[in-house]
Amino acid sequence: MDARSYIEAGRDGFVETLSRWLAIPSISADPAHHGDVRRSAEWLAGHLRTTGFPVVEVWETPGLPAVFAEWPAADPDAPTVVVYGHHDVQPVDPVEAWDTDPFTPTVVGDRLVGRGSSDDKGQVLFHTLGLRANLAASGADAPPVTVKLLVEGEEESGSPHFADLLARHRDRLDCDVVVVSDTTMWAADVPSMCVGMRGLTDCQIDVYGPGTDLHSGSFGGAVPNPARALAALLAGMHDADGRVAVPGFYDDVVEISPGEREAIARLPFDEAEWLRTANSAAAVGEAGYSTLERVWVRPTAEVNGMWGGHTGAGGKTIVPRSAHAKVSFRLVPDQEPLRIQERVRRYVLDNLPDGLRAEIGFGGPGVRPCASDLESAGVRAAREAMARAFGSEVLYTREGGSGPEADIADVLGAPLVFVAVGLNSDRIHAPNEKVEIPLLLKGAESVAYLWDAYATALRG
Amino acid sequence: MDARSYIEAGRDGFVETLSRWLAIPSISADPAHHGDVRRSAEWLAGHLRTTGFPVVEVWETPGLPAVFAEWPAADPDAPTVVVYGHHDVQPVDPVEAWDTDPFTPTVVGDRLVGRGSSDDKGQVLFHTLGLRANLAASGADAPPVTVKLLVEGEEESGSPHFADLLARHRDRLDCDVVVVSDTTMWAADVPSMCVGMRGLTDCQIDVYGPGTDLHSGSFGGAVPNPARALAALLAGMHDADGRVAVPGFYDDVVEISPGEREAIARLPFDEAEWLRTANSAAAVGEAGYSTLERVWVRPTAEVNGMWGGHTGAGGKTIVPRSAHAKVSFRLVPDQEPLRIQERVRRYVLDNLPDGLRAEIGFGGPGVRPCASDLESAGVRAAREAMARAFGSEVLYTREGGSGPEADIADVLGAPLVFVAVGLNSDRIHAPNEKVEIPLLLKGAESVAYLWDAYATALRG
Repeated sequence: MDARSYIEAGRDGFVETLSRWLAIPSISADPAHHGDVRRSAEWLAGHLRTTGFPVVEVWETPGLPAVFAEWPAADPDAPTVVVYGHHDVQPVDPVEAWDTDPFTPTVVGDRLVGRGSSDDKGQVLFHTLGLRANLAASGADAPPVTVKLLVEGEEESGSPHFADLLARHRDRLDCDVVVVSDTTMWAADVPSMCVGMRGLTDCQIDVYGPGTDLHSGSFGGAVPNPARALAALLAGMHDADGRVAVPGFYDDVVEISPGEREAIARLPFDEAEWLRTANSAAAVGEAGYSTLERVWVRPTAEVNGMWGGHTGAGGKTIVPRSAHAKVSFRLVPDQEPLRIQERVRRYVLDNLPDGLRAEIGFGGPGVRPCASDLESAGVRAAREAMARAFGSEVLYTREGGSGPEADIADVLGAPLVFVAVGLNSDRIHAPNEKVEIPLLLKGAESVAYLWDAYATALRG
Repeated sequence: MDARSYIEAGRDGFVETLSRWLAIPSISADPAHHGDVRRSAEWLAGHLRTTGFPVVEVWETPGLPAVFAEWPAADPDAPTVVVYGHHDVQPVDPVEAWDTDPFTPTVVGDRLVGRGSSDDKGQVLFHTLGLRANLAASGADAPPVTVKLLVEGEEESGSPHFADLLARHRDRLDCDVVVVSDTTMWAADVPSMCVGMRGLTDCQIDVYGPGTDLHSGSFGGAVPNPARALAALLAGMHDADGRVAVPGFYDDVVEISPGEREAIARLPFDEAEWLRTANSAAAVGEAGYSTLERVWVRPTAEVNGMWGGHTGAGGKTIVPRSAHAKVSFRLVPDQEPLRIQERVRRYVLDNLPDGLRAEIGFGGPGVRPCASDLESAGVRAAREAMARAFGSEVLYTREGGSGPEADIADVLGAPLVFVAVGLNSDRIHAPNEKVEIPLLLKGAESVAYLWDAYATALRG
């Protein structure tokens, strides 16, 4: 039986199985649901054993558990794939905004509605269906590549223990490629592959001036004002072309290839619709780049918040003693968060007026950007496998956001390939999250083809 | 008996009388003390009658009452003086920081300690002693100029009804000069005369961007950020020389005369000590001006507060929907608050990036700056009268702060002359307010001489 027929025949069973998993409210951010996250891990482990994985383990962390499974290829020289996903879900507030109970999965036409249906349980589960389809098509007892699944339980809580988990199990996770199934396609009828995510580092800048708020009549005009100085620091972070003006900020930025640029330009992007979604009156940014390029392949400096001095009703004529801002930087390959932190620190200190003191605190080491090599065997094979499943060309996208994926690729020393079928309209992190069942089946079909392709394409 | 002998003989009685008035806790900002403010007005009215003023009236307002008194000169063609002061006092919090009860006036050596002793009851009361001294010296029944006293009851609450009161009684307050006794001298051994106060206008600037906070991964870099735009607006309000860069801001600024500049330079100013008082690490400001000039004779733009976006713990990677700032402008002659408001409004709107919306709200019509003409008869005579009383040269100072004095001069169409003997060390508005009794007596002596001088100097 070919993979597509196997998958189509398995549709009802797949939806039923997924629905059982979705019924477990595995909200990692809510301590009251931590027992449910553990139940979710146990459910997944059981499902993976049923699927046929000979090795299935629940990996504990100081927080919530991940699930690991391995199905070795018959050929010991076959390539190895690590599949990354997560089994925890977002909170459901405001629960009254849901049309159905978030943990009573409901089929509405071709859609399955429920928390986690798209992000990320549905996309994890298409892998077991796809692997069974691959085996049904080949008639073999083992996959053509060694398939390792790593399904995290704290992704929606910032993956606080994931880096340690990766480091601890580094040897078990040895692989030739990392396949991530936790992102989206451009549209249901425009299949696409994410080929990069922006990195991130964020900081708080505190500027201190006089020891106390000063009367602006007695002192104003003759002492440095920390709020004015902070405003100048923030304003000076961009030049007139919308480029980040922190010295050295672009030193390590890799320009995207003309090919990727052309591919992005071919996406059917409706800027007016995008602006409606953003609820913004204008699309503005770095000169020389389109809106999609600005949010996908260009780094940013963004003022996330600021405060200082008198913020209540009415006026208060003071020189405030301090002013504060939160600023985050989205990064693109090959910017290193720690190098950017050093440059931002130097920018602030170099531009601080006399008589003020500044402190800069960074929110941890940051997240590295990542990008796939479009010419790599891993990406080309995945793109072809998706094209075969979807019956149409697969375009390239990126994600403007940041995730732990870059760290997985770094720690495991393997390239990242995104094979995912979510949609931006899936309402992940929002009420009435849903997934398109036909897309999950296309995801399963894609990986059924992909493992065969990788068996030869990734071979030494 | 000459004025000085009369005043020295009256010292004990003066301190006793002032102490009785200081015992009335006339805190206008505290509704629980509004009855006391009324008692204070009645006490003053009684004292003025005892002093000999033939006309004494308590002038009601929608808030707390002022006291008006008039003692006409014998000569109907004699000039008229309006003396301005106030009988309400600041709150006393933190009361536990006082060494003595704030409303149990206590003599400690040459000092009288108590709320209102310097600001402003002591300085109002030296006028009655001074006027009696003038009469004792001349032997006349009436002063050589018509003396009108206007003693406000809401000065420490922002004088909310004072402009209306002035307008309503405009005719009764007709005069040739307004003498204000509510400021300070440089030091006990450096008598000086304030010859100007800065004006003030303040605003709140609100910048609005996307309809909601946006995810900086999905949208950052491609939509306008209101916090960044506001920072640029605030930063752009000054140029590299520390001058206010709002177009037209300096159009109406009158440079001080070389004479006044030289007089300011002669003040024994200790910048290190000033910085300790400011608790600031540096004295910085507009290029080309000294610290005293920056706070006295130069206009400013000061960020009093700002806020927007995420201001809590940790990071939040958003493009905030709005950002806000409070900005105030100290003004110098002949800047008009309403013209400055229009220029600030235009600056904000002209420099707002595409896709953002701004609102600018001003805190009322503002306060006009004022300055005395150093060559005027009113100032020269007052300076000579003070010099005679103090036995030393009288230098010039200004006040960097703003008060209703400018409006009095405007409404009454008469020049302002400041004759005051407070000290910056008097701890007005703070615990343990005190006044130097010998300085109050010098104030009394100054006006005793001044009324004689004005009788000829101001004559038509």
